[in-house]
Amino acid sequence: MGVIREQGQKAKAASEEMALLSTEEKNSLLHKMSECLLDDMDVILLENEKDLAQGEKNGLSAALLDRLRLTPDRIKGMANGFQQVASLKDPIGETIESWERPNGLQIDSIRVPLGVAGIIYEARPNVTADAAGLCIKTGNAAFLRGSSSAYYSNKAIVQSIHSALQAEGITTDAVQLAKDTSREAASEMFTMNDYLDVLIPRGGAGLIQAVVKQSSVPVLETGVGNCHVYIDDTADKDMGIAIAVNAKTQRPSVCNACETIVVHQSWFDQHGTELVRALLEKGVDIRGDQAVQHVHEQVKPATENDWKEEYLDLIVAVKTVEHAKEAVSHIKKYGTGHSEAIITETAENKQLFFRHIDAAALYHNASTRFTDGDEFGFGAEIGISTQKLHARGPMGLKALTSSKYIVVGSGQIKE
Amino acid sequence: MGVIREQGQKAKAASEEMALLSTEEKNSLLHKMSECLLDDMDVILLENEKDLAQGEKNGLSAALLDRLRLTPDRIKGMANGFQQVASLKDPIGETIESWERPNGLQIDSIRVPLGVAGIIYEARPNVTADAAGLCIKTGNAAFLRGSSSAYYSNKAIVQSIHSALQAEGITTDAVQLAKDTSREAASEMFTMNDYLDVLIPRGGAGLIQAVVKQSSVPVLETGVGNCHVYIDDTADKDMGIAIAVNAKTQRPSVCNACETIVVHQSWFDQHGTELVRALLEKGVDIRGDQAVQHVHEQVKPATENDWKEEYLDLIVAVKTVEHAKEAVSHIKKYGTGHSEAIITETAENKQLFFRHIDAAALYHNASTRFTDGDEFGFGAEIGISTQKLHARGPMGLKALTSSKYIVVGSGQIKE
Repeated sequence: MGVIREQGQKAKAASEEMALLSTEEKNSLLHKMSECLLDDMDVILLENEKDLAQGEKNGLSAALLDRLRLTPDRIKGMANGFQQVASLKDPIGETIESWERPNGLQIDSIRVPLGVAGIIYEARPNVTADAAGLCIKTGNAAFLRGSSSAYYSNKAIVQSIHSALQAEGITTDAVQLAKDTSREAASEMFTMNDYLDVLIPRGGAGLIQAVVKQSSVPVLETGVGNCHVYIDDTADKDMGIAIAVNAKTQRPSVCNACETIVVHQSWFDQHGTELVRALLEKGVDIRGDQAVQHVHEQVKPATENDWKEEYLDLIVAVKTVEHAKEAVSHIKKYGTGHSEAIITETAENKQLFFRHIDAAALYHNASTRFTDGDEFGFGAEIGISTQKLHARGPMGLKALTSSKYIVVGSGQIKE
Repeated sequence: MGVIREQGQKAKAASEEMALLSTEEKNSLLHKMSECLLDDMDVILLENEKDLAQGEKNGLSAALLDRLRLTPDRIKGMANGFQQVASLKDPIGETIESWERPNGLQIDSIRVPLGVAGIIYEARPNVTADAAGLCIKTGNAAFLRGSSSAYYSNKAIVQSIHSALQAEGITTDAVQLAKDTSREAASEMFTMNDYLDVLIPRGGAGLIQAVVKQSSVPVLETGVGNCHVYIDDTADKDMGIAIAVNAKTQRPSVCNACETIVVHQSWFDQHGTELVRALLEKGVDIRGDQAVQHVHEQVKPATENDWKEEYLDLIVAVKTVEHAKEAVSHIKKYGTGHSEAIITETAENKQLFFRHIDAAALYHNASTRFTDGDEFGFGAEIGISTQKLHARGPMGLKALTSSKYIVVGSGQIKE
């Protein structure tokens, strides 16, 4: 048995112990993890330096190095994260539904942990802490497969978590970092159905698709968002511009950022120039159809590919349409079912949009940037699901749970 | 593009139409389907004869031929099924949760269809009707891949459903039977993520494992049940025997039937002979440990394999244990997480069992045979999930739904 399967087997055994922890035990552990992380800050920063030095040697981009970099503030942020998760309501043991059958059987559906969650992620070491915290609160074991480029940082964080587990008398197998960070080892996780109950890939489209295509373990697909903001003819001018600019520029690198702005022709005739200027002022590179190109020389022509692309950058496609239905058709054709917004004062068009578009989150007069566990009030987030099974949209603690039926009888047999 | 992908593409387009149907339209269609099925009874029976003749020629077992056989009563049963599904509450459009954020955003989680459900199943033609009815009620398109051994029967049933769809002015692409019933065509469905939102395999362990292992489309795993009845020392004698016999013999071929009876030694010392006799009287072949072999000459020795096997037949393994914890360990080791029962008068042992065993359904003083959509009061069932994501245990209409978030604002942007 390879090292990855051995680790998986240990995680499965640990998950049984985790499932039996009380809320108090889990919260006490999370507070201890917070404490240990602050105590271990110097070691973690030193180990992080090793990854950064190696990354520079390997020619990682400035953006990737920034994601990889830990600072005292970022470590404090992780420690606070543990405390925040401790403060959330424990979903485990909750009675989801309860009813009695005519034959007297009493049926309760009870929320239980999933078991072992496998998280496969890229360079950001904070995912190590976030995922561990969420798995612990939900009574799951966490099997973490971080990028080899963050190996020393992840190892230091997990060692710190292990000292907390030891201090609380809980097996360190509950939070494990994959000892083998090769691609083959990741592939082995894809088929460890005996030991893993779910795989959650977090990272770029390539990683996510590899997991979705190759995994026999059930996957929670996160990620790709070709999100739209549609500005209808009755949209308030200032609101339309503010939301479009916010959805595009407030943080362009994330999945809920807007990639295409669709605008009703008559609104664009009146306010198009102002919208384009507002975007240009924020440094946005605009690719537009002919009407959009006409209002400013810096607008480049949009190609078919621009309607499809998730830029994750300060680039936006802008398309004008003759009516709301055309906007809906465009979004249905090119959207990825993540987050879509309509800005309108017309109830009918709002309903048209809500009824005909199928996405994890639909917005009326608000920015797509709100598709986020914190913004939804979940307190924490393991990712944003873009699939339809199990969980859709921001995933908080409940997405890391399953249920079991408890049936109490008095001798009932099936006739 | 192959014929299967073409069909998938059409199903996806049809699913958008299905999602917009009102409850009244869906119920009217289901009643029409019921009517058409009765009208088309003669044709369906004739086509079924073709499959039966071919099956006999191919040497199908009597049991398989029985599953394949349609009778006027079975067709009436399918027609009644459509009416029953029409009478169930429509889950689509239901508000699952609703809350307001401090910034004034109003968030609603709304139940929506999954899209296209692919059902891959073996010889029973009634699955064609059942699955179509459940998919229609939940606003999904159904892509049905039945066994080639039931091709003519399935085709006749789908043609009958098509005449109902036509009469109601709904596209016949909403319910499609795979035109190619080769293995390769089924494999093609496994990776049609663009067109299929879920795959539900219904049949033997081989079929289910093939789908789980090879599919990149999310799967609802159904099926394998190595179910246990544990009779504790305080169990009532008559209740223990009645439940064990019922769970084993009432319908041995189904996944919620009991495969191993675990018995506390002191209960067995008093009532073991009676339990064994009651099982033998029902024609059950018993494989027992030494204590069990002692009470009757017809008991054969159990091997390690007997604790593992899902017999799906009139065979049972019987094991004695010294205490409830040993029973729990045995069930944890060999159970498949389907349905497990404890018969006891001791609250402590009931709690031990409920707390330590992780399965879709746990029973106290009742037969495992109740793990069933009808018995749970769901009115209909698409299968029994043995996985932990999305749905666990009997799956009714809700298992064929997803959700979307509707967020209504007044110009909120992310700070």
